[in-house]
Amino acid sequence: MVIVMKPQARKEDITGVEKLLKSMGFDVHISEGSERTIIGVIGDKRLLADTPLELLPGVDRMVHIVEPYKLAGRAFHPENTVIKIGNEEIGGNKVAVMAGPCAVESGEQLLNTARFLKSQGVGFLRGGAFKPRSSPYSFQGLEEDGLKILAEARDETGLLLVSEAVSERTLELAAKYVDVIQIGARNMQNFALLREAGRMKLPVVLKRGLSATIEEWLNAAEYIMNEGNYNIILCERGIRTFETYTRNTLDLSSIPSVKELSHLPVIADPSHGTGRWNLVAPMSRAAIAAGTDGLLVEVHPSPKEALSDGPQSLNFTSFARLMDDIRNIAGFLGRES
Amino acid sequence: MVIVMKPQARKEDITGVEKLLKSMGFDVHISEGSERTIIGVIGDKRLLADTPLELLPGVDRMVHIVEPYKLAGRAFHPENTVIKIGNEEIGGNKVAVMAGPCAVESGEQLLNTARFLKSQGVGFLRGGAFKPRSSPYSFQGLEEDGLKILAEARDETGLLLVSEAVSERTLELAAKYVDVIQIGARNMQNFALLREAGRMKLPVVLKRGLSATIEEWLNAAEYIMNEGNYNIILCERGIRTFETYTRNTLDLSSIPSVKELSHLPVIADPSHGTGRWNLVAPMSRAAIAAGTDGLLVEVHPSPKEALSDGPQSLNFTSFARLMDDIRNIAGFLGRES
Amino acid sequence: MVIVMKPQARKEDITGVEKLLKSMGFDVHISEGSERTIIGVIGDKRLLADTPLELLPGVDRMVHIVEPYKLAGRAFHPENTVIKIGNEEIGGNKVAVMAGPCAVESGEQLLNTARFLKSQGVGFLRGGAFKPRSSPYSFQGLEEDGLKILAEARDETGLLLVSEAVSERTLELAAKYVDVIQIGARNMQNFALLREAGRMKLPVVLKRGLSATIEEWLNAAEYIMNEGNYNIILCERGIRTFETYTRNTLDLSSIPSVKELSHLPVIADPSHGTGRWNLVAPMSRAAIAAGTDGLLVEVHPSPKEALSDGPQSLNFTSFARLMDDIRNIAGFLGRES
Amino acid sequence: MVIVMKPQARKEDITGVEKLLKSMGFDVHISEGSERTIIGVIGDKRLLADTPLELLPGVDRMVHIVEPYKLAGRAFHPENTVIKIGNEEIGGNKVAVMAGPCAVESGEQLLNTARFLKSQGVGFLRGGAFKPRSSPYSFQGLEEDGLKILAEARDETGLLLVSEAVSERTLELAAKYVDVIQIGARNMQNFALLREAGRMKLPVVLKRGLSATIEEWLNAAEYIMNEGNYNIILCERGIRTFETYTRNTLDLSSIPSVKELSHLPVIADPSHGTGRWNLVAPMSRAAIAAGTDGLLVEVHPSPKEALSDGPQSLNFTSFARLMDDIRNIAGFLGRES
Repeated sequence: MVIVMKPQARKEDITGVEKLLKSMGFDVHISEGSERTIIGVIGDKRLLADTPLELLPGVDRMVHIVEPYKLAGRAFHPENTVIKIGNEEIGGNKVAVMAGPCAVESGEQLLNTARFLKSQGVGFLRGGAFKPRSSPYSFQGLEEDGLKILAEARDETGLLLVSEAVSERTLELAAKYVDVIQIGARNMQNFALLREAGRMKLPVVLKRGLSATIEEWLNAAEYIMNEGNYNIILCERGIRTFETYTRNTLDLSSIPSVKELSHLPVIADPSHGTGRWNLVAPMSRAAIAAGTDGLLVEVHPSPKEALSDGPQSLNFTSFARLMDDIRNIAGFLGRES
Repeated sequence: MVIVMKPQARKEDITGVEKLLKSMGFDVHISEGSERTIIGVIGDKRLLADTPLELLPGVDRMVHIVEPYKLAGRAFHPENTVIKIGNEEIGGNKVAVMAGPCAVESGEQLLNTARFLKSQGVGFLRGGAFKPRSSPYSFQGLEEDGLKILAEARDETGLLLVSEAVSERTLELAAKYVDVIQIGARNMQNFALLREAGRMKLPVVLKRGLSATIEEWLNAAEYIMNEGNYNIILCERGIRTFETYTRNTLDLSSIPSVKELSHLPVIADPSHGTGRWNLVAPMSRAAIAAGTDGLLVEVHPSPKEALSDGPQSLNFTSFARLMDDIRNIAGFLGRES
Repeated sequence: MVIVMKPQARKEDITGVEKLLKSMGFDVHISEGSERTIIGVIGDKRLLADTPLELLPGVDRMVHIVEPYKLAGRAFHPENTVIKIGNEEIGGNKVAVMAGPCAVESGEQLLNTARFLKSQGVGFLRGGAFKPRSSPYSFQGLEEDGLKILAEARDETGLLLVSEAVSERTLELAAKYVDVIQIGARNMQNFALLREAGRMKLPVVLKRGLSATIEEWLNAAEYIMNEGNYNIILCERGIRTFETYTRNTLDLSSIPSVKELSHLPVIADPSHGTGRWNLVAPMSRAAIAAGTDGLLVEVHPSPKEALSDGPQSLNFTSFARLMDDIRNIAGFLGRES
Repeated sequence: MVIVMKPQARKEDITGVEKLLKSMGFDVHISEGSERTIIGVIGDKRLLADTPLELLPGVDRMVHIVEPYKLAGRAFHPENTVIKIGNEEIGGNKVAVMAGPCAVESGEQLLNTARFLKSQGVGFLRGGAFKPRSSPYSFQGLEEDGLKILAEARDETGLLLVSEAVSERTLELAAKYVDVIQIGARNMQNFALLREAGRMKLPVVLKRGLSATIEEWLNAAEYIMNEGNYNIILCERGIRTFETYTRNTLDLSSIPSVKELSHLPVIADPSHGTGRWNLVAPMSRAAIAAGTDGLLVEVHPSPKEALSDGPQSLNFTSFARLMDDIRNIAGFLGRES
């Protein structure tokens, strides 16, 4: 960390900061510039996170040099993390596909979808039982009944299950049924939920928050890892921008960026990322070209009748075409799918 | 709701939409324009929230005409809601003041602050026992011990208590000790928490989310009200913008805007809203001039030693000066304080 | 256009709006809903752009149904526009490449680059002579001398020239030397410049503004087209978001979106879009997979010594590798390069 | 400036940076931390603005410590700048009022308004002759005829004139007629225009860009000042956020913030800042409470018939009420008006 002094800071202000830091066990480098003095602090700066040095006389501001997360960073774990789930793995050479309806609506809808996805070679079935909807008057999900339907689909098809938890209690419930827990964008900074997810064993798909920076996203992963669960799959699902034609703005540059900063696998969700089914195929291809470890795609037997997010769901025909696309471009780029 | 057809929509597409809507019990007005046909839908459009009409052939998009919330809206309750808590009320003529440290750190720190606030004529003591911090390495709060310290301070001073809940379980705990529950910006769309808060009796301070629109904020209030709890105090605490000099951008125009759209009281938090203690006084004055029903202000006996948000906390001297300011300008504008 | 009346609008308010519109030559459809009346306006609504109907008694707001641009829209020109420039064309099957240094710094720097680009099969040489820099103390470009150096490079290599104009006067000057005029992101709503660019014959690369929506971008194109110049190449160069790891957020979903809404070609600038040279290759691949008509890439003989935007420039070795990538992926997707 | 080395930087990387900087005449402080080495650079860092040190081996990034502007900063000119224009002054104790229609539409409209404003004690008449409108089909202003009408109004009433220039040529024209030149939000980074405005003598109202930070705004002022014109009045007119209820988000915290960072006067435009005439009064009061040096307000004899921005214009009755408000609250806060 670097402490930037004000232009008008006095000699005794600088000595004051120096003394305080030394008393806390830090080493200090003072560098008098032409306009300002800056003070470099040496030691584990995470210990300073809660000390408002800005309030000391003569101090202008603190500049953080080291990223605030540790376990999620490349420096801590230089190789890519590869997460094994059943016979699948995420973060290795294969481009994983997680697909299914936004919400579980009925046994028939889900089983039809699951059988179809199985026939397409998909590894993971996704479907929401608890739906975080912005209006209380929208369909909120089948809750535990939805989880039971998902479990039946797994029993029949062998697909691995991904489903969302929205709170401590729904996490406890979902963890009994599914293989991978999803934490949604609106809960990316629900720290109580993150901590709880860190105490269980299941892998977690952690979606990027609507207006979160990559650093905040990795900090959220750090919360989970700090409790002992290292199996985190980051998921880029679009951020909020001023654009209204698309529902969100899918930030594909976050994929190679996360790969530089972190060892964790990162996947993309072009369905939420765009909100338009006809943009799902071009953005899936683009995500693979940008280096994604997987795709999370909404598929529905009849999007017109979907109770949630129909406009961004593919029907079976479009999805089959997408799977061809994915296989082709992944193969061309030297990856399996 | 208005359905906008594509320029190239065919006669049968329009008839198709018409038939479907009539079969669902809606009445329909068709208006053929020079470039496009639009279809007005008559009936309770909230029933259509889950129907993706955009996927019908020839349909371009749906335009929502009526706001999605109802209980939170002015039309439902034309007069201002005034919430009585102990001897205080919020939403009436008085400008309420809620003050205290960001986090409860110790009995001594809190009791000193409480006594001082009492002497200043403040009605509400705020202090966090569960702190949602963006890094897991920052101080996370004293949890139930913090709530106990708050309760002691109330017993001694008679101040009403405001404290934050961050999940279902912490809500259950906090509700045993405090008079008003706060739901933080990062939890504004934690729907499980909102629903739980709707099932209890305590008034709720609902902070605006970091990148939330006013409509989303009122939708969040609607979640709580829909469960039966109508005692909601909206709190503008700044939104995320590209500006970095201030921690957030305090959107004071949201105050008169909320007053137009809703009957609920609205207060302002200039401490989080700016992140700089020296901006708290001018922005408090401005908030009162814009019509706020109250202020939420961070005060700490020694901001330099605060474990959380020191740079935005006032010390006792500055706070006493602020209370003078508040009283003067509120009085000038015909309000009590 | 649809006019939404307030819930409390009176009969005479509705008649008032109806009369006014009819007196202006519009036809009107009135649709009385359960909560509000809406009024559909039939006729050329562009004539209403300057009439503040919101101020009539009982009117809540106006909802625009038809996009505000016309010449730039797909409906006006259903086929893709293909722009021919010398022996090159943009908007057809080929993925065009425009490359060169951010700023022209010297004859030697530019000629070296031009010869290298020629050897790589690039069609367009880009280089700035007028640099819009956020600080007046940064290098501002060689101005007309820079344009002369560009012209020499064209004379020797036959490369087509792309260079930026930043005002009426610099446009007049640049138009004497170059083949394509670039209008930068900060000038996307410099309407005086747009109008002037519409009065000349040269094709225009129109960059998307830092916080512009796609609609605003197409409106800017409409300004140029409205003066008679239809040769516009849209360029996605990243929008401003809260992310700081990348300089901007390259919105690749704007590429297929623009293709739906408009007939104009659209290219991507991964150098400004990311601000990091090592993200240029993955984002170039991704842009091609998303359907871009071309790429605008910064190349410098020695990025370390560049006077402008070095961190996002490729050196010759990286650029040669990128050209291989571009050729491979474009070829795989059935496009030339 | 501080150079942050990568965790894996080698001894020779650090020496390399050190040598380069010393050869450029800088002094260097090296501080080896527990995780990274940082290098403090001593000397006039503005000379380094164009050197991409990030590309040297082992360098992670550069951190700027000193603000990039100088002439606009408080350190350069510790007292408030007070600008005298005719008998008025801006930046002193008085809260200046600039009022008038968004666009000059006719002699009658403008003269009526001017006479009314004169009777209200207003000092400045504003009115646009060149209108930057987002669609080419909207009213673009009366151009030089509008300027002539403004000049007539001044001749009759003695009001000082404020009007916008949108390019080099319109600036040349406007400067012949008006007392204060306005540079609009969309042109805040039109550097050619800024430079031209710096070469003339007239005071400039410089509006904050739609998504500009305060630092970028002060950098834009620096462009003008760097050419010799120090008479700059900053104008907060709202920034773009996700909120749609208001047209922009008026950032009142920018007022006390600018006052800390700069000596230049700063005024507020609640008309564009909110886009709603009924929010103009509360936000004007709030701006004064936050310390504004003046207000820019839209007034129209008949907002319903305005050709531009009617919904945010006050009529004469509302404006007269606003002037009472302004006088009262300014007086209460110890300022004239």
